[in-house]
Amino acid sequence: MKYSTIVIGDELLIGQVTDTNSGWMARHLTPLGWEPHEVRVVADDAQAITRAIDDAFAATDVVLMTGGLGPTKDDITKGTLCDYFGGTMVRDEATARNVEGIVARRHLKLNDYTRDQALVPSSCRVIQNQVGTAPIMWFERDGKVLVSMPGVPFETETMMEREVIPQLLKHFHSKEHIEFRNFVVMGIIESLLAMQLDGFERALPAGIHLAYLPQVGYIKLRLTGIADDAQWLSNQMEQGAEQLHAILGRHIVADHDATMAAIVGERLRERQLTLATAESCTGGNVAHVITEIAGSSDYFVGAVVSYATRVKEDVLHVDHEMIAQYGVVSEQVAEAMATGVAQALSTDCAIATTGVAGPSGGSEATPVGTVCMAAKCGDALVTQRKHYPGTRSRVIERATNDALMLLLDLLDSASAHRDGQA
Amino acid sequence: MKYSTIVIGDELLIGQVTDTNSGWMARHLTPLGWEPHEVRVVADDAQAITRAIDDAFAATDVVLMTGGLGPTKDDITKGTLCDYFGGTMVRDEATARNVEGIVARRHLKLNDYTRDQALVPSSCRVIQNQVGTAPIMWFERDGKVLVSMPGVPFETETMMEREVIPQLLKHFHSKEHIEFRNFVVMGIIESLLAMQLDGFERALPAGIHLAYLPQVGYIKLRLTGIADDAQWLSNQMEQGAEQLHAILGRHIVADHDATMAAIVGERLRERQLTLATAESCTGGNVAHVITEIAGSSDYFVGAVVSYATRVKEDVLHVDHEMIAQYGVVSEQVAEAMATGVAQALSTDCAIATTGVAGPSGGSEATPVGTVCMAAKCGDALVTQRKHYPGTRSRVIERATNDALMLLLDLLDSASAHRDGQA
Repeated sequence: MKYSTIVIGDELLIGQVTDTNSGWMARHLTPLGWEPHEVRVVADDAQAITRAIDDAFAATDVVLMTGGLGPTKDDITKGTLCDYFGGTMVRDEATARNVEGIVARRHLKLNDYTRDQALVPSSCRVIQNQVGTAPIMWFERDGKVLVSMPGVPFETETMMEREVIPQLLKHFHSKEHIEFRNFVVMGIIESLLAMQLDGFERALPAGIHLAYLPQVGYIKLRLTGIADDAQWLSNQMEQGAEQLHAILGRHIVADHDATMAAIVGERLRERQLTLATAESCTGGNVAHVITEIAGSSDYFVGAVVSYATRVKEDVLHVDHEMIAQYGVVSEQVAEAMATGVAQALSTDCAIATTGVAGPSGGSEATPVGTVCMAAKCGDALVTQRKHYPGTRSRVIERATNDALMLLLDLLDSASAHRDGQA
Repeated sequence: MKYSTIVIGDELLIGQVTDTNSGWMARHLTPLGWEPHEVRVVADDAQAITRAIDDAFAATDVVLMTGGLGPTKDDITKGTLCDYFGGTMVRDEATARNVEGIVARRHLKLNDYTRDQALVPSSCRVIQNQVGTAPIMWFERDGKVLVSMPGVPFETETMMEREVIPQLLKHFHSKEHIEFRNFVVMGIIESLLAMQLDGFERALPAGIHLAYLPQVGYIKLRLTGIADDAQWLSNQMEQGAEQLHAILGRHIVADHDATMAAIVGERLRERQLTLATAESCTGGNVAHVITEIAGSSDYFVGAVVSYATRVKEDVLHVDHEMIAQYGVVSEQVAEAMATGVAQALSTDCAIATTGVAGPSGGSEATPVGTVCMAAKCGDALVTQRKHYPGTRSRVIERATNDALMLLLDLLDSASAHRDGQA
């Protein structure tokens, strides 16, 4: 089953907000065999919306639409849908009660604008929004379905999971089977990876294909299979996964879709190790991506963001003379920060970063984009010095990922070494 | 001048990567009077790309295209563009030298895949990519222009700024004038704001309009004006800005486009104050958003992420008895964390957060989504307890913004108080 996505909103078109709804939908619908045909971002404009619906219905039987449902004036989606599907704007009593309930729970006053949220085209069936005031509207025409949802990601994500996806599956029925296998690959660049996998790709049977999804500093691979015969598909996918492991070996650090922080977390949990970070140029971002993972408190103890040099000395006990000798951006200081935070927070493992994220603050010896990092686990400690091109946020992002990969590599080396000895 | 954006890539369509290029382009082109017509995300598929170009050229004279130019097999953009604009695939010597130079600088080996990057349609003019291997291709037909750029944001952003935007401005010439004014509004919900601004909006002259851009916990307003007469436009925009200030008063915390972290940073810099954060449930994210701002080292000293309770006691010196009495998620502990980190890192101001980001770990007294926070500046200290619905990442994001707003409000209250006394 193919579907189209229409994303409405001037704020998205002019780049003040980034659309994440279409990606969320795709990530949740493709495993169910629903294939995204196209995403279109259009203005809060009746003509643009109408043309996008026409084109989407010409290509697919399902159109998922988000945005343009807020209580303010620049939202004209409901009127356009009413003109498109027919009927008149009517007050939906269930929506009105929902809006009143939310307003009351949030201790707000009901006003004309929130009250208007209860007006919907008579041609739609309303799905009550359980986490917001904008109603979700289900329209049908000639066997085709359009679902209009709010633009607020949390509301759309929650209601897609609770109501819209189950109702879509009930309405349409797909006979083809679909399977995905995801792999995270580290320590090999994309073009070299493509050469190594050339023979594997050529030998894949019809219906199964491999995609490269380059990330910041590493690569995700996705094997997708679609077939009528579920058993055949399952066998082929299993074989494909085994072959990838045989070809890539330790380069595959996870055989599921996960962030680098999640993979590091899995290793720490498996081996019952604890972690702390000491961050200068990454400014707390390593701790942030680690703590975005639910359950990270099982292994993550805390962090010291030593942005000012005196915090490195006072809290992490980095030697003042060492900083003077090697410079604050040095592998020596990164090592001392890792050791210092592991000691201060009594952890098994530590990650440390110190660098120049830019755009200013560079010198000839340490130009903007230079980052020194250290990873420590027990007595084992590794450091590296990197130089990243690009913006401040890119330097932070790349250093964050590379620091996590440095620790992951240390953890995997130690375990490979241990297994070799056993 | 209107333009269309086409974003190519299966990985974007299926949601494994989020498109940020179209937003970046819009943010940089709209101030120059270039209006985005539509963004279309399409698959790595010749037919889909061809149809998108046809539709885009039917609506606008300029098409900006990103993606589908990597060295691996799933990229078919160049062949499709060659079929569309005519000619044959030829080797571009300048691109070949560029690719060889980059490969050598990165100490990689040249292989067949990177070598193929130098093949381009003979119908295009190549703009050398100074920061990557994929060439930028400029096509013209019937007075219309299509520019094909890589999907990697850093490459496209850098080359748009250095070459593509200047060349587009030279090629086309716009006579209309355009002006923007941005405002950040805090402490008032969208529907109430819309009511307060109802009269203002009605009175706006033709060509000038107001847009609401709700953020996480606050609202951005954007006044856009387009007119032939630059002087008239400038006067109208100035008047509009003055009226907004008169109506909204202290609710306007910035009269330019800025993140909450940037606004807090501006206040701290103005008043020469230093800041530290003590974070439990936000896990370093407050420090991260603060240090994303270039120059934040002028006021930001550091952070202690006290994820484990023992770090609150050992490093932040929060009293063990207090935690036992009030619970780790309490306004009392948030206050003690703020005081503790300001003392440990010797700063004027501090922000502290402690809460349950979820999805597990809640109790009846402190359900998932409960966050206590404190903001401190000198002797002034405020705390608040919030409860957020939604996912773990949303709780972290909202708590981060609310904690920053709590400090901003404290800073502005103190200064209003001081000004009142003066």
